[in-house]
Amino acid sequence: MYRTHTCGELRASDIGKSVTLSGWVQKVRDLGAMTFVDLRDRYGITQIVIAENATAELKAQAERLGREFVVQVTGTVLERSSKNPKIPTGDIEIAAEVLNILSTSEVPPFTIEDNTDGGDELRMKYRYLDLRRSAVRKNLELRARMAHVVRNYLDALDFLEVETPVLIKSTPEGARDFVVPSRMNQGQFYALPQSPQTFKQLLMVAGFDRYYQIVKCFRDEDLRADRQPEFTQIDCEMSYVDQEDVLEVFEGLIREMFKQVLNVDIPKLERMTWHTAMEKYGCDKPDLRFGMEFCEITDLVQGKDFAVFNDAEYIGAICAEGCAGYTRKQLDELTDFVKRSQIGAKGLVYIKYNNDGTIKSSIDKFYSAEDLKAVCERCGAKEGDLILVMCGKKKKTLPQLCELRLEMGNRLGLRDKSVFKALWIVDFPLLEWDDETERFYAMHHPFTAPKPEDIYMLESNPGAVRANAYDMVINGVEVGGGSIRIHDKELQARMFRCLGFTQEQAEYQFGFLMNAFKYGAPPHGGLAFGFDRLASMFAQLDSIRDVIAFPKNNSGRDVMIDSPSLIADEQLKELAIKVDIK
Amino acid sequence: MYRTHTCGELRASDIGKSVTLSGWVQKVRDLGAMTFVDLRDRYGITQIVIAENATAELKAQAERLGREFVVQVTGTVLERSSKNPKIPTGDIEIAAEVLNILSTSEVPPFTIEDNTDGGDELRMKYRYLDLRRSAVRKNLELRARMAHVVRNYLDALDFLEVETPVLIKSTPEGARDFVVPSRMNQGQFYALPQSPQTFKQLLMVAGFDRYYQIVKCFRDEDLRADRQPEFTQIDCEMSYVDQEDVLEVFEGLIREMFKQVLNVDIPKLERMTWHTAMEKYGCDKPDLRFGMEFCEITDLVQGKDFAVFNDAEYIGAICAEGCAGYTRKQLDELTDFVKRSQIGAKGLVYIKYNNDGTIKSSIDKFYSAEDLKAVCERCGAKEGDLILVMCGKKKKTLPQLCELRLEMGNRLGLRDKSVFKALWIVDFPLLEWDDETERFYAMHHPFTAPKPEDIYMLESNPGAVRANAYDMVINGVEVGGGSIRIHDKELQARMFRCLGFTQEQAEYQFGFLMNAFKYGAPPHGGLAFGFDRLASMFAQLDSIRDVIAFPKNNSGRDVMIDSPSLIADEQLKELAIKVDIK
Repeated sequence: MYRTHTCGELRASDIGKSVTLSGWVQKVRDLGAMTFVDLRDRYGITQIVIAENATAELKAQAERLGREFVVQVTGTVLERSSKNPKIPTGDIEIAAEVLNILSTSEVPPFTIEDNTDGGDELRMKYRYLDLRRSAVRKNLELRARMAHVVRNYLDALDFLEVETPVLIKSTPEGARDFVVPSRMNQGQFYALPQSPQTFKQLLMVAGFDRYYQIVKCFRDEDLRADRQPEFTQIDCEMSYVDQEDVLEVFEGLIREMFKQVLNVDIPKLERMTWHTAMEKYGCDKPDLRFGMEFCEITDLVQGKDFAVFNDAEYIGAICAEGCAGYTRKQLDELTDFVKRSQIGAKGLVYIKYNNDGTIKSSIDKFYSAEDLKAVCERCGAKEGDLILVMCGKKKKTLPQLCELRLEMGNRLGLRDKSVFKALWIVDFPLLEWDDETERFYAMHHPFTAPKPEDIYMLESNPGAVRANAYDMVINGVEVGGGSIRIHDKELQARMFRCLGFTQEQAEYQFGFLMNAFKYGAPPHGGLAFGFDRLASMFAQLDSIRDVIAFPKNNSGRDVMIDSPSLIADEQLKELAIKVDIK
Repeated sequence: MYRTHTCGELRASDIGKSVTLSGWVQKVRDLGAMTFVDLRDRYGITQIVIAENATAELKAQAERLGREFVVQVTGTVLERSSKNPKIPTGDIEIAAEVLNILSTSEVPPFTIEDNTDGGDELRMKYRYLDLRRSAVRKNLELRARMAHVVRNYLDALDFLEVETPVLIKSTPEGARDFVVPSRMNQGQFYALPQSPQTFKQLLMVAGFDRYYQIVKCFRDEDLRADRQPEFTQIDCEMSYVDQEDVLEVFEGLIREMFKQVLNVDIPKLERMTWHTAMEKYGCDKPDLRFGMEFCEITDLVQGKDFAVFNDAEYIGAICAEGCAGYTRKQLDELTDFVKRSQIGAKGLVYIKYNNDGTIKSSIDKFYSAEDLKAVCERCGAKEGDLILVMCGKKKKTLPQLCELRLEMGNRLGLRDKSVFKALWIVDFPLLEWDDETERFYAMHHPFTAPKPEDIYMLESNPGAVRANAYDMVINGVEVGGGSIRIHDKELQARMFRCLGFTQEQAEYQFGFLMNAFKYGAPPHGGLAFGFDRLASMFAQLDSIRDVIAFPKNNSGRDVMIDSPSLIADEQLKELAIKVDIK
């Protein structure tokens, strides 16, 4: 037996006991007469003391110890003379009697501490050492607790956990698939699932009624900080439901998670239409931790001498509370911010509603004080506030103003990671026009049901048809989304036609689903949460990497195991493929 | 709202309530005046009645109904005049007031009943219809319950659920990998994991202490009935443990599963050495639902005139209770059985210990009645028993006799699927000699720790070294297995040398693990259960297919979605590969 207790377990009530602990050496303090060793495991840290009167053998062992050695210590629990109130084991220490080195360690390439000296790359390469840092491990513990709460909640509601296949079929629609050459069917390929979408719908056709799975999905996309080639979804589907039923169940899930895992009470979720979100926040995932809603002022400021405004389709403003004192430099920074190529605005107009009631703006020469006051009033500005105005094509200006709003939120400290504001975005458009290919695309996916009352417009005015689709947004991040699905084979065929699929294309790609719908498909709908994102939000992190045990870097490489890698010619031959780099 | 209740929910206490149900039409019985409809969902079946005095509209709707139509019914719960005690809802029926057809259905290609008329192939192609059969769905419900019990048990013991990557690195050792071409790293490939073995060991190095995961694994092997290219493991690992600790925890898990899921009490598991299992049952996964242990009689029967025995290295017998009356035909069948090419024996000797005390055997002319009685005595045979004898090279004869024993078990009805006999096989050999390649292979894998007391023989007598490895066997099936791992980098290097790895090969394939061991690896060990097999055993099935929602056939094809399939040239080009069929 390697231990009687963990390193996080012993308390004052254990004083006098003979115990055995095993763990890693966090620190050795050699005070000459005595040596103190901090012994660490997943559960905590316990102080070991090699006393002045210890045997020569024991002292010699202690002298050999270095950081990250693995040792087993047997000894007696003593009361500490100087207690450490910062750790749960701080009242006691172990007077070592036997010290057994289980593994030695080279000096680790970075310190195993919350504030490590290791850079990103080094820590990725030695991920197994990075994971020893409690800050990193705690994120993964949090993730495991979240999964536990999810499963218990859904199990209690009769959701059935079903595993869907990983080796499936490639479909050209959507993002790029990872593919797997088949040895037994040469020249043919499996694809890894981007989501279990069609399988969960088939499970509904199969009468499974309520399904869930916490499941790996795969997308071969160019990577960003919050994207990984493999990621995890909490995937769910329900039969005999309308949108309201689905929102009810998953709003309950997210509130349960916040309560059980973080002890945070999330109030009933606001429901905002996609249209309102766009008008008020310029995007479909508004951060509601702060206000600063858009205020359209087009009618107020056009028809004067300012050509830029007169030519604009849309003129919108936000009001930054208490920022009237912004300096020239601060305002220039904001202008530079919106002019960055990622945002691409031409400029920024400001109106300062000063504390003394006067108004100062970058467009003073075109507008009277009354004109500007009217703008201030429309925006609900008080004395001391700053109004920021952007203009141009509406479709372009809204997202630009959205970025500016978020930037102001950051500057004003209004985006506290420990505050959570969740809402539903509903009534998404069913279809999205793409200027480049000159066709409509499904905004969610081709199985999403239109709102019954809008179906009549499917052919005549497709862009106006709203979908029974919904996203859950928390703090400006889309954490989940889903829809009621089409369960009628005629409507599904009509939808494919709207998307420009020929009968043959639809048949080839989704034939098995359309076939299934011939045999009595129930009304159904569902949703999927991005589990990595949700976990990183719960952990108050910016990137999903630190809630993934072994993440890949931006080139899709696992630098720890050095993958992907070359494979043997023999393997390629068996698979009947050849590498063909141009 | 589509329903107020499910089809399995209503009881006599609900009589008089107005309810709405939704489900599939299982059966329509048109009795002229009245029509009865059995409405089915995942939860049960409820009888709907369209009464004689129903509206013409309602009657017309009812007439349109066919098998597997999806309908919504609103009506009043009535007491049935003729109750059906076979189903929980058998006391009531619903007098339909509104009947709404949600989806029509073509006539399904086979009947949706426990005893369906659909063949295997048809049911695989229409798997979503096969899954509607309650016999099939119940298997998947059982599987979900098992997963639930596993997670609760391990969570309570501080095991941390951690997801390990699916896109990893190909290693030539072991079975064939599925590979995934990398677009971002052209010419390089990921591999899908055959198991998360190295990652779980790295998690131990990382101090995670106790890990588990219910996880998909992949092997590109030619398929048999109980093999699938993707399969699921319950994968676990623990730190600071010896073999006894691991056996204790996972014996507890399996007993908990049997108790919670099947309400079966499994007694403390017997531990049998690999050597004993081979000697007594001829294989390392003995079926202990019945006795019929091997009895070596080499010393008793050699030195007489029977050359076949005199030339044999090993002569073994089993005693089939009460089978002395076997006919010529039955004995011939057994001889044919052992001579089949899969078994490959040359023949079979029998000795009948008749009820009248006389002895009749196929070798009467070589042996006296006393000689044969001695054999009967050695085998513990009573009057009325039949002794079956096989002989030859020991290594070949043991597995042949094993097959014969199992066949006799089948014939005598001793292998009842509702009886469960679990045991541990321990003390496996560390290495296995392969005659073809003339080298030793790791019997489990190269990280398995030898028994400390045997390490001295690693170079001098490798075949005699026993491993700290263990398999859990239930009813003749290996349901799980694992080992204590090597945590010492020197011993690991020595092990690689024994396996004929050069330093470079070991470095290339397992460098990251060996590197990790430089920084303080704790003693650790673990185990993995084959979840599909375990589930099919719990469901008392022969094949794992029926506990998998969407299985593949023996050619690795999913005939429902028609996968694998060709992919677009554009995809191949992006991945820099070419199909190259000779």
